[in-house]
Amino acid sequence: MTEAAQLPLAVVLLSGGMDSTVCMAIAGKEYRLAALHVNYGQRTQERELQSFHDIADYYNAEHRLVVDISHLAAIGGSCLTDRAIDVPQPDLNANDIPISYVPFRNANILAIATSWAEVLGAAALFIGAVQDDSSGYPDCREEFFAAFQQVINTGTKPETQCHIRTPLLHFTKQQIVEKGIELGVPFEKTWSCYQGETIACGECDSCALRLRGFARAGAHDPLPYNHRPDY
Amino acid sequence: MTEAAQLPLAVVLLSGGMDSTVCMAIAGKEYRLAALHVNYGQRTQERELQSFHDIADYYNAEHRLVVDISHLAAIGGSCLTDRAIDVPQPDLNANDIPISYVPFRNANILAIATSWAEVLGAAALFIGAVQDDSSGYPDCREEFFAAFQQVINTGTKPETQCHIRTPLLHFTKQQIVEKGIELGVPFEKTWSCYQGETIACGECDSCALRLRGFARAGAHDPLPYNHRPDY
Repeated sequence: MTEAAQLPLAVVLLSGGMDSTVCMAIAGKEYRLAALHVNYGQRTQERELQSFHDIADYYNAEHRLVVDISHLAAIGGSCLTDRAIDVPQPDLNANDIPISYVPFRNANILAIATSWAEVLGAAALFIGAVQDDSSGYPDCREEFFAAFQQVINTGTKPETQCHIRTPLLHFTKQQIVEKGIELGVPFEKTWSCYQGETIACGECDSCALRLRGFARAGAHDPLPYNHRPDY
Repeated sequence: MTEAAQLPLAVVLLSGGMDSTVCMAIAGKEYRLAALHVNYGQRTQERELQSFHDIADYYNAEHRLVVDISHLAAIGGSCLTDRAIDVPQPDLNANDIPISYVPFRNANILAIATSWAEVLGAAALFIGAVQDDSSGYPDCREEFFAAFQQVINTGTKPETQCHIRTPLLHFTKQQIVEKGIELGVPFEKTWSCYQGETIACGECDSCALRLRGFARAGAHDPLPYNHRPDY
């Protein structure tokens, strides 16, 4: 039995983006890895899935699971057509929350991850949520994760001891890039762009945040970009 | 605007079985209704879905949503084939937990229900969980639901005020039948059997619990049975 086989196992939520990949690298220092990817009907789904597999390969994930919750994304839009006259409409659009936004999405993802963690006997569950980036989504805050930990403690078998780990929660993008460089993260395998699938656009929010993070860290993002604004 | 339209809205988890239908009847006394059905690859899925629609029609549900989480049920089995040699195997079989059992299932279902409740602006979320029936599943206990309430409180928008209601949690099957009779529940539209889809078997656990509940309540179950044991 190798030394690695004696490490405990962690489920890591791995979108294929920069944050979750740095999270994977952090988890890999202390755990064997089980990588979980969730599709929710996003435009660049295929590209993200490719990154997921490339990164899971790179970190020798022992287990991987891809789950589709695109039916859930439909909930966000369904209220617009489903007997709309009776539906109190929260000001989704006024807040600029995208149509693909699933309210309570992180709870759904953590529930899936916990189910899998319980089956695998995993000791930890890593999620690369970043509170400052979250546009105020309530399910990206520390108190939400603390409450979910209590749900895991009460809703799983006594022998299941699975701890939610959010190592990036209070990081800036600059700090995430710096941590990734420190850990040798293969940034060229990640994907963050919301628009493109071969060359990143450099203009969507996700590209802008990422490129600014690299700029502030004094580093070069190895991905190909159509447009690289100066920061 | 009718009087009913002024009631608050509740999301009700409606499997189509007896318990969730009694729960629907209880919710309907105080709320307008949004009925949520979750498929998870069970054998009698089609029959249950028919009951779901019949009961949603009967109670004039304003909204209905059917979500498929059969990918989650696969988690339960996947550990048996996925590099099993490295997987710590919890004693799933020793505990007689069926292969279709999804660990942490109620958390997954409540997360979906909360997403929908938040979009609809629902004030309550009814689930017909019965603690005594639950074979000790940890996600059927009062402390689990209390913890999940805290996740809802921290993980949804401030204006979302959605309360989990578990009116049957400490009921026996007899009490559920009695409550259903009191509320005029159309038991003939419900489906509980795990085996049959046209005539209930009368022999599976679900049929046995149901028939014994009717017997103890001194009532007649209107469903057709292949076999009606004496209780």
